[in-house]
Amino acid sequence: MTEAYLIYASSDRDPNLFYWGYFRAPDPFLALKINEKTIAVVSTLEYGRCKQDSTFSEVLLWSDVLQIVADPSVEDDVCKVILYLQKEYEVSSFVIPDDFPAHLYETLKKFVPIRFDTIFFQTQRQYKSESEVEQIKTACQLTSQAILYAHTILKKSYTDATQPFLYYRGKVLTSEQLRSAIECYCLKKGGHCTGTIVSCSKQAADPHCEGTGPLYANEFIVIDVFPRLNQSGYYGDMTRTFLKGVASIRQKQLFSCVQVCQRELIGRIRPGVNTKDLMQFAQNYFEQSGFGLRKANGIYEGFIHSIGHGLGLGLHEYPSVGIHSVVLEPNMVFTVEPGLYFRDLGGVRIEDVVQVTSTGYQLLSHCPYQWIL
Amino acid sequence: MTEAYLIYASSDRDPNLFYWGYFRAPDPFLALKINEKTIAVVSTLEYGRCKQDSTFSEVLLWSDVLQIVADPSVEDDVCKVILYLQKEYEVSSFVIPDDFPAHLYETLKKFVPIRFDTIFFQTQRQYKSESEVEQIKTACQLTSQAILYAHTILKKSYTDATQPFLYYRGKVLTSEQLRSAIECYCLKKGGHCTGTIVSCSKQAADPHCEGTGPLYANEFIVIDVFPRLNQSGYYGDMTRTFLKGVASIRQKQLFSCVQVCQRELIGRIRPGVNTKDLMQFAQNYFEQSGFGLRKANGIYEGFIHSIGHGLGLGLHEYPSVGIHSVVLEPNMVFTVEPGLYFRDLGGVRIEDVVQVTSTGYQLLSHCPYQWIL
Repeated sequence: MTEAYLIYASSDRDPNLFYWGYFRAPDPFLALKINEKTIAVVSTLEYGRCKQDSTFSEVLLWSDVLQIVADPSVEDDVCKVILYLQKEYEVSSFVIPDDFPAHLYETLKKFVPIRFDTIFFQTQRQYKSESEVEQIKTACQLTSQAILYAHTILKKSYTDATQPFLYYRGKVLTSEQLRSAIECYCLKKGGHCTGTIVSCSKQAADPHCEGTGPLYANEFIVIDVFPRLNQSGYYGDMTRTFLKGVASIRQKQLFSCVQVCQRELIGRIRPGVNTKDLMQFAQNYFEQSGFGLRKANGIYEGFIHSIGHGLGLGLHEYPSVGIHSVVLEPNMVFTVEPGLYFRDLGGVRIEDVVQVTSTGYQLLSHCPYQWIL
Repeated sequence: MTEAYLIYASSDRDPNLFYWGYFRAPDPFLALKINEKTIAVVSTLEYGRCKQDSTFSEVLLWSDVLQIVADPSVEDDVCKVILYLQKEYEVSSFVIPDDFPAHLYETLKKFVPIRFDTIFFQTQRQYKSESEVEQIKTACQLTSQAILYAHTILKKSYTDATQPFLYYRGKVLTSEQLRSAIECYCLKKGGHCTGTIVSCSKQAADPHCEGTGPLYANEFIVIDVFPRLNQSGYYGDMTRTFLKGVASIRQKQLFSCVQVCQRELIGRIRPGVNTKDLMQFAQNYFEQSGFGLRKANGIYEGFIHSIGHGLGLGLHEYPSVGIHSVVLEPNMVFTVEPGLYFRDLGGVRIEDVVQVTSTGYQLLSHCPYQWIL
């Protein structure tokens, strides 16, 4: 008798499930992990593809299993199938992630011992293997190519004496156009983007604003690209802030402050470092540079997010690199992306991806960078 | 004292949450619905954007709320915030969806009455308003434009006497290339695609196989496009099956069988019809046409999925149109997409989107269709 880890989710949405079988499906299915063995139960719609393409040790057909277990005392079909698996694989108890569906949990626990293991599911993908690091590197190469492509377009854009807008090939250049150019570029190279940020001026003061309308000369333009590779499922993530035209002294100060902070943060990465201290360093550095956190008209300005996030099969995963205490360990992979946001100046963010090594760090993203164009 | 519906999720992933505030965020946040009022609690990162862009009645700042509720008896921060909301809005009990995170549910129910409402969350988005129908129509227009674009490329493709492949502009035309052409086309028109299917020959025998490698002459090519509109968040969904070259009699029979079945199914749509009966009709029709379900080498062949799925802010949502009993009602919107899949012939699927009206149906997707090119 043994414990079995259990997930019921769509592997399109749940990287933990995807990680067990490297199989993408839009609708929820069941999967078990017993020691090194992984078992999936899928519908007829997915069965052939799952058998052939996934890395699951075993693939069972949902309708076959349901035929065997016509237990009338259990109403819920998913629950029936799980109880069948329990018998079949001699499972003593199930271990589930925090985000397991609550209703299924409530039903299931009437029949079988079940417990949460927050740490296991948070950390199972946290230490990257060599081949995972290679995949993330490949994704990061795509992000830097995409950023360079955007750079080229901005470089070629021009202004008109009468208007503050940037023009490209005779038309006003908009966030939407530049975003779609970047995303098409990634698509052609095998990566899917969603929510690519191309935000300018006041819009860039909102870190997650995707950006709409004309891009302006002499204003910050934040470009944040995070494609997922179609083949492997791994993400890249890179942000660069550009300015076409002439930067004011205040803009130069803001940019330089973020750039120096990012370099300092990356230089501090090594095993044993607590991410809380990195966060504290960034907050202090910004404060001392005259760009500390402040509240204006009810909205916070300054450094209003964390330093970064784990990156892999999920876009935001463990380790989280912010106010929570996380001690860095070899083969953790995460973004380092300090940023500053003020309504009057806009925003600056610079983001790269690092891997913690046994003695320090390896930068997984590289991109030549000239911010004033 | 009143009941409050409660969601804790990422609105990028949870259409029910997106529906409450029309606000996209990648990380989980809290939202409440009390009668017609919706309240969101978000991080500093999202606060400004959520205040400005969302349709939530109220937006609270996570850190502000946490400062007020320094209740040391509750460990979990999310739970603390929920208990604050309970007091502040005089909530007698919370109502949650089936897929509410189980760990949070387990923690929360020690402090406050909480119950599931499967039906509410399944059906709250099921009846589309006029403006929702318009958005889905717009998304369906994009799908048909994209299908016509693919049609044009396939039409222009040509064969070589020595090879079975299709060529386009001097090169072998692959699934990957055609998919990326379709997805770029959608991007430029304001829609994001993921997982677009361009599968040919044996690959097309797997309904969810995305397709890889060269496209072949004289074989079925299934193209399934389901972009999400960036502006509104609504999906379109359309499938057409093409064949470049000469179709065999068996291929013509298979195609015609699916096409007639789809038309018959659409013609049967009206309020009061049970989707189970539609499913039964399709199964019988295929059976009687000599294309019934069979198992070959352990894998099912034939009509191996349901007739369709609800469509809206989710790609697969209620009503489900398959073996489960659902009685059609006005303003339900769903796909009608029968298909047949055999290893030796490949696959054929034809998909359109319909809205149930008070007396029958309205087809929301239109596309001129010539399958042999």
